[in-house]
Amino acid sequence: MESKRKILMDCDPGVDDAVALCLAAAHPEAFAFLGITTVAGNQTIEKVTENALRLSGFLGLNVPVAMGARTPLLRAPLTASEVHGKNGLGNVELPASAQTAREHAVLFLRDALCGLPAGEQATLVPTGPLTNIALMLRVFPEVRERIAQIVLMGGAACGGNITATAEFNIYEDPEAAAIVFDSGLPVVMCGLDATAKCGLDRAAADALAGGTGKVSRAVGGMLQFYLNAGAYRGRPMASIHDASTFMYLLHPEIYSGCRTTVRVDCSEGFNRGMTVCDLRGREPAAEPSVTVLLDADGAKFQEYLLDAVRTLDERL
Amino acid sequence: MESKRKILMDCDPGVDDAVALCLAAAHPEAFAFLGITTVAGNQTIEKVTENALRLSGFLGLNVPVAMGARTPLLRAPLTASEVHGKNGLGNVELPASAQTAREHAVLFLRDALCGLPAGEQATLVPTGPLTNIALMLRVFPEVRERIAQIVLMGGAACGGNITATAEFNIYEDPEAAAIVFDSGLPVVMCGLDATAKCGLDRAAADALAGGTGKVSRAVGGMLQFYLNAGAYRGRPMASIHDASTFMYLLHPEIYSGCRTTVRVDCSEGFNRGMTVCDLRGREPAAEPSVTVLLDADGAKFQEYLLDAVRTLDERL
Amino acid sequence: MESKRKILMDCDPGVDDAVALCLAAAHPEAFAFLGITTVAGNQTIEKVTENALRLSGFLGLNVPVAMGARTPLLRAPLTASEVHGKNGLGNVELPASAQTAREHAVLFLRDALCGLPAGEQATLVPTGPLTNIALMLRVFPEVRERIAQIVLMGGAACGGNITATAEFNIYEDPEAAAIVFDSGLPVVMCGLDATAKCGLDRAAADALAGGTGKVSRAVGGMLQFYLNAGAYRGRPMASIHDASTFMYLLHPEIYSGCRTTVRVDCSEGFNRGMTVCDLRGREPAAEPSVTVLLDADGAKFQEYLLDAVRTLDERL
Amino acid sequence: MESKRKILMDCDPGVDDAVALCLAAAHPEAFAFLGITTVAGNQTIEKVTENALRLSGFLGLNVPVAMGARTPLLRAPLTASEVHGKNGLGNVELPASAQTAREHAVLFLRDALCGLPAGEQATLVPTGPLTNIALMLRVFPEVRERIAQIVLMGGAACGGNITATAEFNIYEDPEAAAIVFDSGLPVVMCGLDATAKCGLDRAAADALAGGTGKVSRAVGGMLQFYLNAGAYRGRPMASIHDASTFMYLLHPEIYSGCRTTVRVDCSEGFNRGMTVCDLRGREPAAEPSVTVLLDADGAKFQEYLLDAVRTLDERL
Repeated sequence: MESKRKILMDCDPGVDDAVALCLAAAHPEAFAFLGITTVAGNQTIEKVTENALRLSGFLGLNVPVAMGARTPLLRAPLTASEVHGKNGLGNVELPASAQTAREHAVLFLRDALCGLPAGEQATLVPTGPLTNIALMLRVFPEVRERIAQIVLMGGAACGGNITATAEFNIYEDPEAAAIVFDSGLPVVMCGLDATAKCGLDRAAADALAGGTGKVSRAVGGMLQFYLNAGAYRGRPMASIHDASTFMYLLHPEIYSGCRTTVRVDCSEGFNRGMTVCDLRGREPAAEPSVTVLLDADGAKFQEYLLDAVRTLDERL
Repeated sequence: MESKRKILMDCDPGVDDAVALCLAAAHPEAFAFLGITTVAGNQTIEKVTENALRLSGFLGLNVPVAMGARTPLLRAPLTASEVHGKNGLGNVELPASAQTAREHAVLFLRDALCGLPAGEQATLVPTGPLTNIALMLRVFPEVRERIAQIVLMGGAACGGNITATAEFNIYEDPEAAAIVFDSGLPVVMCGLDATAKCGLDRAAADALAGGTGKVSRAVGGMLQFYLNAGAYRGRPMASIHDASTFMYLLHPEIYSGCRTTVRVDCSEGFNRGMTVCDLRGREPAAEPSVTVLLDADGAKFQEYLLDAVRTLDERL
Repeated sequence: MESKRKILMDCDPGVDDAVALCLAAAHPEAFAFLGITTVAGNQTIEKVTENALRLSGFLGLNVPVAMGARTPLLRAPLTASEVHGKNGLGNVELPASAQTAREHAVLFLRDALCGLPAGEQATLVPTGPLTNIALMLRVFPEVRERIAQIVLMGGAACGGNITATAEFNIYEDPEAAAIVFDSGLPVVMCGLDATAKCGLDRAAADALAGGTGKVSRAVGGMLQFYLNAGAYRGRPMASIHDASTFMYLLHPEIYSGCRTTVRVDCSEGFNRGMTVCDLRGREPAAEPSVTVLLDADGAKFQEYLLDAVRTLDERL
Repeated sequence: MESKRKILMDCDPGVDDAVALCLAAAHPEAFAFLGITTVAGNQTIEKVTENALRLSGFLGLNVPVAMGARTPLLRAPLTASEVHGKNGLGNVELPASAQTAREHAVLFLRDALCGLPAGEQATLVPTGPLTNIALMLRVFPEVRERIAQIVLMGGAACGGNITATAEFNIYEDPEAAAIVFDSGLPVVMCGLDATAKCGLDRAAADALAGGTGKVSRAVGGMLQFYLNAGAYRGRPMASIHDASTFMYLLHPEIYSGCRTTVRVDCSEGFNRGMTVCDLRGREPAAEPSVTVLLDADGAKFQEYLLDAVRTLDERL
């Protein structure tokens, strides 16, 4: 792993976006944040931008935040407030930020990428709908050479969550996802096949919530909301999908997957938003540019994630 | 398991259809064949009908054979001669049949079902495209009450063979499959998730081919063709997809699965022919009528199948 | 025009089906009816079959009636009772029939066609969804050589009625329509472009309703229902779409059109059921088998239709 | 008509884009050009941008030109060099421009719109694929209030050119078109129904080509290419589709149309790129924001267009 990747995170926090940011913030030796951009998804653009601002301060990142797309390319936006709560962070209240968000995530991303010293690249980490990234690729194609890779949370090779075959982030903006997956840029798809196995169990969530560190308490509170209020009721573990992006960059060895083509179903039918991965093991015509994660070691994930929270508790 | 199910097999032999028939023929205590109908699929309607006639004689079934649809409902037919050989049986030559095929599989099926004694039902076992079954359900809806269940080979919950998401039989006629899966009749979908694990390995195929029994030699020869010429080259085992239909009726305990809705993608897009199974474990609005097999004990399958071939060798 | 065409009418009466039958019944020198089959469409299969029986007697046709498909190939049936009234005939009550309907329109059609003397053919006149015709073509392909042509009411080159682009009969069963239009058989598509211009105006309808002939009074009553209750409220004329089929056979000179390919949109999108006619005037790869009527002389239509009603009044 | 509309033209010249610019350039009392942006369509982005630069100089407009999208949102680009020639202007050579194009049409458009004095608006005139406009609306939604209306060439209510139902500009980027038509902004769709009737006949084209004015000769030369080399061979008139945008702004009285909803077919099927206009005359739920031109007075169009060319000949 190269040291100190430059990171541009594009997110819609969102409980799991928040925990992903915690993981990244705990590893300044690995990640140099250039900024955070936001996109409507788990909550409205106003709420997720406010959350990004608060997280940037709370976690000591103190990086610029720029507000992005308030709607998908083609359809009306959905939110997932039943999963992430009214404020988008499981109703955990973080301290208000003194910073304000810049307008125009797409311009911010372009400027950050094109402002890199000659020959340098940054890694994009999108954990929401891919609207901003797709718009940037189409309006400013010159950014392509500045993108090391795109490590995104989204999609599923086998079985969705928002529909039988589609995962929420991709379903929210399939056309944007198609632009990204077809871009020819190196993409790592952290989809449900792997991310659903990566989270924290109830005991861990309760222990964090009852802890003394401020990050522990915040993360624990968000996960308790997750586990009690929504999709995970009655389940032993809450998946923290978005955190697999940074975890993969830190510990690729706990994931397995393959390189393959990924096509996004943009039809109006019931497979809309499906990320179709060809896993038949046939020889492709050309080396695919997408790596699809298919499995993960959930125990290691939990261990590394708890380490990160502990580190932040001590530092902040 | 009830004793002596009445069976109407609708098939496109096809190597694996042939082996499925062997399995069934070895169990006259379990299956009473009312007839065999054919459908274009693995090969043209003429070839698969000729094969059905020869198999009926060769395996001592001696039941009526009726020729069915030569094209799918909407699109032009495909064949799979690269998998099943020029004659559809891996180029193994079975003795010619004295019998000739009846015309009109749909009429034959209707007559067989409606001619059952009052209160009796038969089990349909389709192992090819579902064209005949769909046409019968639409032209003669009165057959519905005579159908105990439809145990079919086709589809896949996760990952196809002919395309990334579609299995051959369903891809060949998605509209017919939609009619069957939406019929409300009890359907068991023996799809690739289970059937790909059920077959014979090279050692077993070679042993059969080198044996002395006439059924052994025929089955062994077909499987050697499979393993050498086509989709299974370089793989340790050849799946015998169609045989899982009868195996499930004989030994349901070696399969696992769940009841769920199955929707067939009938679009013109790249998911055409996909059988979309909702495996999210959500409470359905109504009890689904489809059982989807998701896993199988391949070792038991091979054991039971070899038993059946041995039994036939001795009997015939 | 050849003399005495043999006719098999497949319909869902339906006011305009009824008037179409009147027109045909008035011309025994032109049409020899072999029978009438029914299909669910304007009303349920039970109601349209009852109507066909009554019409056959009322109009002195006295031909066999056979009941056909109660649902389209793939989707749930719609009806159009707001256009055709509760009984499907604008709530005009015709005398009950002594005859009963045969089951299985598809079998009846097959038997009628295959029972023709060697070398003879019949003309199919479908004025409802094409479910029966499509099923027959798939189950009994041997009928093809017995079909002189298929003169159908359905579709539109430019602008639908049930949706912005789809006409009711095709929208009701697009997959069946695709089978018919792709069959390669000679098809005349009497679509909305021509049929919407062919009907009776209010004065004519009122005059018929107030007349003394029993056919006049029935036709007038149905059309008054049309003009007052439904789609034609406030319009000067009620289209009698289905009658253009027989009118075209009697007086092709009052219609204009062209030969072209017709593709049916079978997607789930908002163009479902559209009959896509290529009117760009490009040289086709092969001579198209479909004639699409694009315009009509509505004044002549009304004149000829009123003649027909008068003829029946005198005869019956 | 308000005096001196501020104009932002987004185009892919293209013979008919060029003639549209001539028409506009002849009317400085009506149009104040803020700039011209380009989009890949009739030719590659490099060629159409070069053409826009040359046209801006040749016609004395001397406005900034900014280069836009080189590909549609989702699919690979097409060109129409068989219609517009290798250089995109019917192989007519215009003098090279001293000016160079700015990068980033989307930024240029945003700056031009947001830089307007408070309360002022500009009219967008897109005559190519709608990629730039769609990207601007999504990246910079604040431009919406600065857009008076969007008068675009594209689409067809009844019958396409590139396919049976789709017009070239919309077919090239249906997703972009959907964004524009669904935007709620006032849109005038100058589609084939009207624009195909607006052009110049052979006699007029020959007269221009043989004239003495430099604009006459250029326009005449381009149209002779059109009439001889491509889609119009053997036809009496060449349509100049794009010019109907400015002609409508100058002389709305020679067009007729209606307000209605327009939905763009973004499926992968054969209706991809169709602009579905609901012309059934039903009462819409809300006042539609799109005006669809359905007919035009072609004689008046030719007269006004020839006046414009004459005016330019005299002025330049």
